[in-house]
Order: sequence, then C-alpha cells, then structure tokens
Amino acid sequence: MKIFPEAKIRNIGYALFRAAGVPEEQTRIVVDELVEASLMGLDSHGVMRVAQYLNDVKNGSVKLSAPIEVIYETPNSAIVDANFSFGMVSAVEMTRIAIEKATKNHIAVVTSRRCNHVGRLGKYTQRIAGAGLFGFATANAARGGHSVVPFGGSDPRLATNPLSYAVPTSGDPILLDMSTSSLAEGTIRKLLQQGKRLPEACVLDGDGNPTDDPAKFYGPPRGAILPFGGPFAYKGFALSLLVELLGSAMSGVGPERSDYCNGLFLLAIHPAIFGAADTFVAHIDGIKEFILSSPPAPGSRGAVMPGGLDFNTRRERLTHGIPVHETTWATIVEAGKPFGVDAEELANRQ
Amino acid sequence: MKIFPEAKIRNIGYALFRAAGVPEEQTRIVVDELVEASLMGLDSHGVMRVAQYLNDVKNGSVKLSAPIEVIYETPNSAIVDANFSFGMVSAVEMTRIAIEKATKNHIAVVTSRRCNHVGRLGKYTQRIAGAGLFGFATANAARGGHSVVPFGGSDPRLATNPLSYAVPTSGDPILLDMSTSSLAEGTIRKLLQQGKRLPEACVLDGDGNPTDDPAKFYGPPRGAILPFGGPFAYKGFALSLLVELLGSAMSGVGPERSDYCNGLFLLAIHPAIFGAADTFVAHIDGIKEFILSSPPAPGSRGAVMPGGLDFNTRRERLTHGIPVHETTWATIVEAGKPFGVDAEELANRQ
Repeated sequence: MKIFPEAKIRNIGYALFRAAGVPEEQTRIVVDELVEASLMGLDSHGVMRVAQYLNDVKNGSVKLSAPIEVIYETPNSAIVDANFSFGMVSAVEMTRIAIEKATKNHIAVVTSRRCNHVGRLGKYTQRIAGAGLFGFATANAARGGHSVVPFGGSDPRLATNPLSYAVPTSGDPILLDMSTSSLAEGTIRKLLQQGKRLPEACVLDGDGNPTDDPAKFYGPPRGAILPFGGPFAYKGFALSLLVELLGSAMSGVGPERSDYCNGLFLLAIHPAIFGAADTFVAHIDGIKEFILSSPPAPGSRGAVMPGGLDFNTRRERLTHGIPVHETTWATIVEAGKPFGVDAEELANRQ
Repeated sequence: MKIFPEAKIRNIGYALFRAAGVPEEQTRIVVDELVEASLMGLDSHGVMRVAQYLNDVKNGSVKLSAPIEVIYETPNSAIVDANFSFGMVSAVEMTRIAIEKATKNHIAVVTSRRCNHVGRLGKYTQRIAGAGLFGFATANAARGGHSVVPFGGSDPRLATNPLSYAVPTSGDPILLDMSTSSLAEGTIRKLLQQGKRLPEACVLDGDGNPTDDPAKFYGPPRGAILPFGGPFAYKGFALSLLVELLGSAMSGVGPERSDYCNGLFLLAIHPAIFGAADTFVAHIDGIKEFILSSPPAPGSRGAVMPGGLDFNTRRERLTHGIPVHETTWATIVEAGKPFGVDAEELANRQ
C-alpha cells in the first residue's frame, strides 16, 4: 500500500487527464471526485477508476466534446441527453439543474439519456443537500451491466442499482449511498483476494445455490449476486426494482435499451414546499441527536448517521494521506504511458 | 380458524361501525380497507384491527366529526391537518389531493399533521398507481410507537417505518409495502405463539444482544427490533431514517412531537413529467416480463413482482373466503357488545 497526500494524487490525476486531452473543467470535476471518493474511503469509486476512465477517453466511449443537452423540460423536470460525455460531468450538470429548478419551484426531477458511468451517487445528493434541499438519487444500468438476480430467480436481471439520499445538518450532512444488492462485484473480488468469506450467503454459485464462498461466485460457470436482506431479500429486490423503474419506465426509457451505462434519476425537494425552510436543519439536528442518544449495543461503537464513518475517514485521510493499493497504482502508472506521463516520476517529486 | 365469505365479514364490519356511530362514508372507507387487507393476506392490517378501531372510536381518540383540513398548499404540495379523524379517512383524502395535484401539475407531495393510524400504506400507493401515476409513501410514528433500534444502538429510536411504492401495469400493479425493520411486532408475537424461531437473529433481547428467540424479545426486560438487512442492517436503518426524515423534518415537524400516530408522506409523479405518459405502462410491462424471465433458483418458485403473492391471495380468498383466527373473531364479537351488535348472530345468518 502506498500513501499519497491528497494534493499529490490529485495533481497526478490532473496531469494524466490533461495529457489525455481532457479539457480543464472536465478534468477538475472527474479527478476531484475520484480523490473525494478515495478520501471518504469509498475506494471502489475512487482513484482505482483513473485507468478505466482514461481508457474510456482513449477508446472514444467518453466523448470529450459532446454537448450536454436538455432535450425535454417542465418547471419541475428535465431530461438531459449526455451524448456520452463524461458521466460525472453530465451528472454534475443534471444536479445543477435539479437544484436550480427545486430552489425556484420547490421540487424537481431530472433524468438522463445516453449517460456514461456517473460514479458515486452520494456526490450528487450531497450537492443537493449542500444547497439546503433534500436530495435523492438512483442509477440503473443497461442489461450488459446486470449481475443481480431478482429474489427467487437465478439469472441476473438487475444491476447493483444504488440509491442515495442526503439532507443538511449543522455538521456533516446525513448521506446514504448504498447498493440495493448485498454486495458490489468489487467487494466480492476483494474478499476473495483476502481469502475471506462473504458476510452471509449473499451470492449464488453458477448453479443458482446460495453461498458465502466468493470463489464460487466466479465459477465457472459464473454466479450472481443476491439483493440485500438475507431472509428479507424480497425487500432488497423490490428496492432494486424501484431503481430500475425510476431509471427507465418513469423516465420514458424502455427495458430493452442498452445504449447507456447509467440511467440516473435525481429528485430534489426544497423544504419550503411545506413551509419548512426555517426549521429544516434544526429539526434534522434534533432527529440526529435523538437517534445517536441510543446507547451502544454490546460490542458496538454505537449508532452513526449514514455517511458518518465516511466523513470521519475523510478527515483522517486529509491529515494522514490516501492509501492506494499497489495494483491500483500500477494501473495508474500504466495508464499514463500512452499519454507520455510518467506517474512514478510525478509521485517522487517533492 | 373461521372462514368468512368476504361479503359476510364486510357486512358484520359495517354493522359494527354504524352501530358505534361511525358515519356511513367513513364506515365504508375503513371497513372496506380492513377487508381488503385481509383479502390480500396482510392479516396484521386486516379485520384483526376491527376491535382496536372501534375502541379508538369509543375512547374518543378517533374524532368522527373532525374536519380534514388543508392548512398549507402550493401547486405541488399540501399539508393536511387530520384533526385526529380516522387515519384511513384522512389518508384517503390526502391521496385524492396528491393524485389531483400530480395529474394537474405532474408531481405532488402531501404530508399529514395530527393523523391517526393510517394502516397499510399500499392502499394509498395503489390508488395513485390506479390513476396511472407513480406512487410512493412513507409513515413514521411518534416516540411512543418506537420499537426499532438504529444500527449499532440498543434503545429504540424508530418505528417499523414502512415505505411503499406502486406503479401500474397492464395487469396487477407492482406494489411494494414493506417495513424497514426486519419484522413487525405482530409477526414476532405470531412466531412466538407458533413456537417458532425468527428467520434470523433480527431482534435484540433486553440486554441488547441479537437473538432469533421471540420470547427473549418480550423479556422482561423488553428487547427491540433490528432494522432489516442482517449484516447489512445499516442499510435498513438508513431507509428507516429516510422515513423518519420525510415524516418529520421535511414536513416541518420536529422530532419531539408526540401528538400523532403516523406522519404520512405521499409522493405522486405523473409520467408526463418526462413526456412518458404514453409509454409508461408498456415499459413497465417490459421490465416485468424481463425480470420474471429469470429461471427459478433451485427450490424456489421463481421471481414474483412486489405484491404479486398478495394479489394471488386476494383472488384465492375472494373465491374461498377469508380465514379469521378464533382470537380475532372473539375480539370482534366482544367489540360489538357495547354497541348492542351480536356479531355471532350476524355470522350465523344466511
């Protein structure tokens, strides 16, 4: 594991993206978010994606000069055609539109067309909360990205289908960002590499039988991931289906569509919609305080707000640096080569 | 177990409520819903509530002549002061307002003040779906109704905090109605009576230790219920917190409020908000078909849509009658006595 001060890994990211021809504003949005996710400890959405995104630029699946267009709108809604621009760049623009419309008209929904990988949903809901609103987001994926079975089924029909919400407090926002599947594929891979079992029998082997053995997920034949919930996984499945419905049917997209990566759905609600703008944060603070007053369960460090551990990790890593796995670092160094960037040399500079 | 044709138990319900002084329209709304829940197999929200609701009328906690008032509104929202009328009656009116506003202005949120027990949330989301819209609902509860711990905590700080959504299809709607806790108290009691264990260690005993023994939940000292999700119960907790936030802070109600039973939050979205009204049902049908095409997992009867089993039970019970537990029937008979209604005699009439 290498430890990078956040400014250093950020500057390496900037150098790589700029050398790959990514315009400055897009570079800032994407690299800053990858570093932010790594700071929060959400490594699967952090700098380990640098090489993947640079590859997307190189092979043309991310279109750097594509316009991000509002192709349909009402006072309370917009459909944004991302035209396969950087997913994060289009999602940031969608978020800006959602905040603007909800601030003006109390409530807004914004959805995407032809949108690349948007990364961590919490980035967008946190921005909405930062503007003083309630933010909610979901993202489905095209069929090629399906790895999760419906409860009772054995073949994947859904993606990990994350959902996120955020609200402001007088301190860190409350920020949920969760997959509706039990685990993401990256987590299964990590546990396999570490020689560990899964937390419960939350994947199916290639024959459709539940198992907590990560090796049996990979097969061959390859298995599938169960929705989260264990004996109550019908709830996780129903939430995954909600994400699918919001990203497709609700947004006017049919289930057979495959020319996208993420179907992003954003909902922003201004508390003024209930005349509650003045009390919103104080009431949330009160709820937070009441919940955190529950004494710790035996062996637990007590209740934490959604996102609370991530914000703690962020403070810790801002001070002590971001750990980057050797394999991730190797992919970053490799990714720089076609663009003439020597990441090792940049890392060794004072 | 007694089996009642649905018309018979419905008529007994009508007779009881009318004799208790409940006006005809309110009687129809409440009794029809209790029978509907029983038809769908959701017995905990069905006719087993007859005696409780009659008692609420008798002791004055339900105010039969209270006005149901819109005390704040915008084109996309309303706050309804239920003035402690029948929870279901006020929730039906809230649903009507949500549908009306969302049909006219694409999207609407409606929330409650001083609202009694609203029963099954699926009643309201199904109505919204029946009008061709996407419906979403949550209900929190005052502190007196708290039985669920935050993840990591040992004292209850949340209610079972259900959430529901529904969308139309060309057949049965897709209808999720789930608690964000692992189990409802009624289910724990039922499993205890049947001498069974819980599906997993999803409650805490009085000392805060997880257990699958329903007796240990009751103590003394009394235990608490975990959010759903097993090792991922931080997700269930975060969803429970979402329900709490929507029912209180978002709606302008502080966490300390206790003069209500349910804080109901309704969201209705017309697919025209994305220009998708014409394709909405066909796209949902396509998603449904795709998901149900996943072959059954070994030992499973295959994937079903949320609500699918309930609609099957409904068809079955419409034909073969509604099973009513002897103890439930006894409470109904007892509840009729103060009002001079002999439920036994009504049951024995042809």
